[in-house]
Amino acid sequence: MFSIRILMYIILLFTCLISDEQNGHRALHILQEERRKQAQRSVLISCQVTTNEKKFLKYLSQHGDINKFFFYESYGLYAVVEFSSSESVASLLESSVIPSVSHECVVPFKSRLLWLRNHSLVDSGGQTSGLVCQAQTTTPINELIHRISTQESIEQQMMSLTEASQLTEENSRLRFLVCSLLEDIATAYFPECTITPFGSSVNGFGKLGCDLDMFLNLDNIKGRNMRLPKSGLSLEYQMKRANSERAVTQSILSVIGECVDQFGPGCVGVQKILNARCPLVRFSHQPSGFQCDLTANNRVAMKSTELLYLYGGLDARVRHLVFSVRCWARVHGITSSIPGAWITNFSLTMMVLFFLQRRNPPIIPTLDQLQQLAGPADKSIIDGNDCTFVSDFAKVQLQSNTETLEQLLSAFFEFYATFNFSRLSINIRKGKEQNKPEMSPLHILNPFETSLNISKNVNVTQLDRFVALCQESSWLSQQSRTLNPKKSTSGKNTAMPWGLAALLLPLQVDGIKGRKKKTRELASERIKSLLVSLKKKDSPTNLMCRVRQQFIGRKHLF
Amino acid sequence: MFSIRILMYIILLFTCLISDEQNGHRALHILQEERRKQAQRSVLISCQVTTNEKKFLKYLSQHGDINKFFFYESYGLYAVVEFSSSESVASLLESSVIPSVSHECVVPFKSRLLWLRNHSLVDSGGQTSGLVCQAQTTTPINELIHRISTQESIEQQMMSLTEASQLTEENSRLRFLVCSLLEDIATAYFPECTITPFGSSVNGFGKLGCDLDMFLNLDNIKGRNMRLPKSGLSLEYQMKRANSERAVTQSILSVIGECVDQFGPGCVGVQKILNARCPLVRFSHQPSGFQCDLTANNRVAMKSTELLYLYGGLDARVRHLVFSVRCWARVHGITSSIPGAWITNFSLTMMVLFFLQRRNPPIIPTLDQLQQLAGPADKSIIDGNDCTFVSDFAKVQLQSNTETLEQLLSAFFEFYATFNFSRLSINIRKGKEQNKPEMSPLHILNPFETSLNISKNVNVTQLDRFVALCQESSWLSQQSRTLNPKKSTSGKNTAMPWGLAALLLPLQVDGIKGRKKKTRELASERIKSLLVSLKKKDSPTNLMCRVRQQFIGRKHLF
Repeated sequence: MFSIRILMYIILLFTCLISDEQNGHRALHILQEERRKQAQRSVLISCQVTTNEKKFLKYLSQHGDINKFFFYESYGLYAVVEFSSSESVASLLESSVIPSVSHECVVPFKSRLLWLRNHSLVDSGGQTSGLVCQAQTTTPINELIHRISTQESIEQQMMSLTEASQLTEENSRLRFLVCSLLEDIATAYFPECTITPFGSSVNGFGKLGCDLDMFLNLDNIKGRNMRLPKSGLSLEYQMKRANSERAVTQSILSVIGECVDQFGPGCVGVQKILNARCPLVRFSHQPSGFQCDLTANNRVAMKSTELLYLYGGLDARVRHLVFSVRCWARVHGITSSIPGAWITNFSLTMMVLFFLQRRNPPIIPTLDQLQQLAGPADKSIIDGNDCTFVSDFAKVQLQSNTETLEQLLSAFFEFYATFNFSRLSINIRKGKEQNKPEMSPLHILNPFETSLNISKNVNVTQLDRFVALCQESSWLSQQSRTLNPKKSTSGKNTAMPWGLAALLLPLQVDGIKGRKKKTRELASERIKSLLVSLKKKDSPTNLMCRVRQQFIGRKHLF
Repeated sequence: MFSIRILMYIILLFTCLISDEQNGHRALHILQEERRKQAQRSVLISCQVTTNEKKFLKYLSQHGDINKFFFYESYGLYAVVEFSSSESVASLLESSVIPSVSHECVVPFKSRLLWLRNHSLVDSGGQTSGLVCQAQTTTPINELIHRISTQESIEQQMMSLTEASQLTEENSRLRFLVCSLLEDIATAYFPECTITPFGSSVNGFGKLGCDLDMFLNLDNIKGRNMRLPKSGLSLEYQMKRANSERAVTQSILSVIGECVDQFGPGCVGVQKILNARCPLVRFSHQPSGFQCDLTANNRVAMKSTELLYLYGGLDARVRHLVFSVRCWARVHGITSSIPGAWITNFSLTMMVLFFLQRRNPPIIPTLDQLQQLAGPADKSIIDGNDCTFVSDFAKVQLQSNTETLEQLLSAFFEFYATFNFSRLSINIRKGKEQNKPEMSPLHILNPFETSLNISKNVNVTQLDRFVALCQESSWLSQQSRTLNPKKSTSGKNTAMPWGLAALLLPLQVDGIKGRKKKTRELASERIKSLLVSLKKKDSPTNLMCRVRQQFIGRKHLF
């Protein structure tokens, strides 16, 4: 058992190295720019299921060398094809035709979204071609539980879960391609603007199938803040004026939303949500299957993305722990895809980061430390908030914490099972608990707008459920029946849920949903105080055993 | 007197020759394309009134050679500057800055509409620079009456009126420039489209200050109706579909309207009138002072424009007569800028053309004759209607009618004073009266959609007023006090209204507005029948004298 764990740890470290080599050592903006260029050289083609890959590639290669291609399914079969040069894309589009449909007309807006037509009768015999399709959605939870149950260690389980959930290379390319198609629409009027993904699509914590948040950056438009001559003449563009940057953003998003709605092929359900705090255009991009949100000048969100990207890239354990905790939270209804009083994925990620900063020695540095490491190019003040931190991975020296993922997962639950939420705030800038400046049940400091609480939405009920689930999961994660795989008589793994898989099964606490709130609070409080009082005397395992008994004993109260 | 008339006629013929040399011998599409290219190399600059022309030109010449420039006033002082090459425009824009206004933000949409800033204190002493401004509006009617009263002949008066009313070279350039600015917006999404003026802006009959009708032409978008391979693969653009071409037009105009509204500097009062028979976007372009209507795929209107352009270019008398009749109709309230039961300028022009086709020998050919002269390149079928006619002026041989403008003006009034509107239709295709196919008071055949009546809107009241005014004007135009200038004792022209000017003064008939309709109709009918009965026996002058007496005698009836 021990040797397997060591082996897994070596594999884990190796994975970290590979991942560092792939992405980790490059600042996000460099990665973004590279992906953006790839996307600009790419086309998205709807194919028939009978498409023959060889003929397909031969046909496209007429226009130039292909760097990369892959197929996937989403409302039909699609292919993403990246050429070596943009000229190939231009040549391909030049040869493409506008469809003529009887009794229908088309809006002749040309984009890099195409149909492949097969005029040969031979190939369309109704047979599928056996093309390999890249999955663009996550594994269903039951299948995931089954899959990780066959793993030999909890670490392996956590890595396997990350592997099954995270964005693939192909999905990432598809996201940048959708941004690039939208950038074509935006650059029609603002030639110097860019549209890049932000948030989970690029921060390293995104799940396959997560929403595509897009950032329209108008900051690179030339001619702003240019020095005027002291004497003589100069020319200025005549431009429409607005009262605020927000009004300008609303104008621009309104027009882009209209274009997407009226011209954008495959774009459906376009909603202009312009009066939101951060105005946005939401739509569904059917060819990719992405739910898209386009915002403009949302610079703080871009900095948050960079920060998570940096933390995720510093130590591979960060991402594995975040993926495991998020999956656990989702199956137990702590997070939800519906807006409401639930804890958000972002808050949960902050809690994991904070927990990792509180290890001894810390696994990741505090944001204040990252700020001190920043170079002049990293300087960033947004709306009066200092959002500066280092972007160069090489400048960050980590301390030598060797805790395993198994230890960290268990410790995470224990940490938040006993956290004094009523009095303390979670603050990744300082990496220590601070007194809460306001009375929200859960207080997590917004790392860049430090007067804000990112979890203001969370109510007492949802926080209590989180704490209760941490308590139960902490207890469970230390039981020998949870800790070890179920073996058959022949010594083989039976694939019965164990380890992380066991934590993803319905728990006792899951039954308390919808019961009377007041009694529950009372019980929760009692358990917590008991837990704290016991903590000083007991080992965690014994402690959690007792709490568990106490907890089960109180079940009639709920 | 006679020698002066001959002199004027020679001048008139000379003007025709010049006008033919300038525009007449070039087909409209060639002229349009040339103007469009000029406009693409032009910029529109808002200047301070203190602008020094020399410094202005020196400053702009940094970017390249200037082909042509002029100043005009419209909500401030503006300059149109045409460079020799498009690169100069690009260079000028490259050096232009985005304005930074305190407490305000701008929509960073860059166009060729600029402000000139003067940073030297010396030049801005509040004094105007004495720049020569090109008039962009017509002369007020009283001033016009005064001006033409000083002319020596009616022909001279009609030419002077045309001169004062028609579009100038500069105004025409400005119209194409506004189209070009809008084309920049449209080509952002439909790179192969064009926007060109149609209607009065280019048909030769436009007045200074008339609305700017713009035509978005999407027909040149490549990739339509392309031949597909018989076997193998091909690529098609994915495009949004609509039920009809009309729906596509509505989509496109909706987005362009939104862009103009949100981004277009100087564009105000944007209205999307998408449910009209011909969907359009209406807006006011403040820098040019034009009221603009943008339509798409309005191909028949473009053909009508070409036809009027051809007729106007064939013989200079056409335009002079049309300008005079239109001015006369406007001052007497026959036409109106408000939509309603009034006779439109287009109908009135058709009436003039028809009248000229009915002269003996005809001054202009019929549309059927123009169709017979058409070459293969002229072929045009729009929505099933044959809109073919010759575009090459050189192919049209005119008959040698030598009537003077004075004769034609008087004859025009006489022609319509006695026209049998109740039974006959005006048809420029055939150049002869036809039986009315329907019961509208006024029936003028739509030359390209021959099932339609272009003056269906006109009611009996308006038609009667027109006829009564023709009667009175016909009578007046034959009176010696109208026919000859008022001379002072020294033999000089007193500038007292005479000739055409006298016809532009309030007439007896103008007093009948708003009186009881029935009595008026009765009177009108009586006068008409009397007129017809007298016509056979009398010379026109005597006839009109009697009608006039009869008419005045009946005044108590109204």
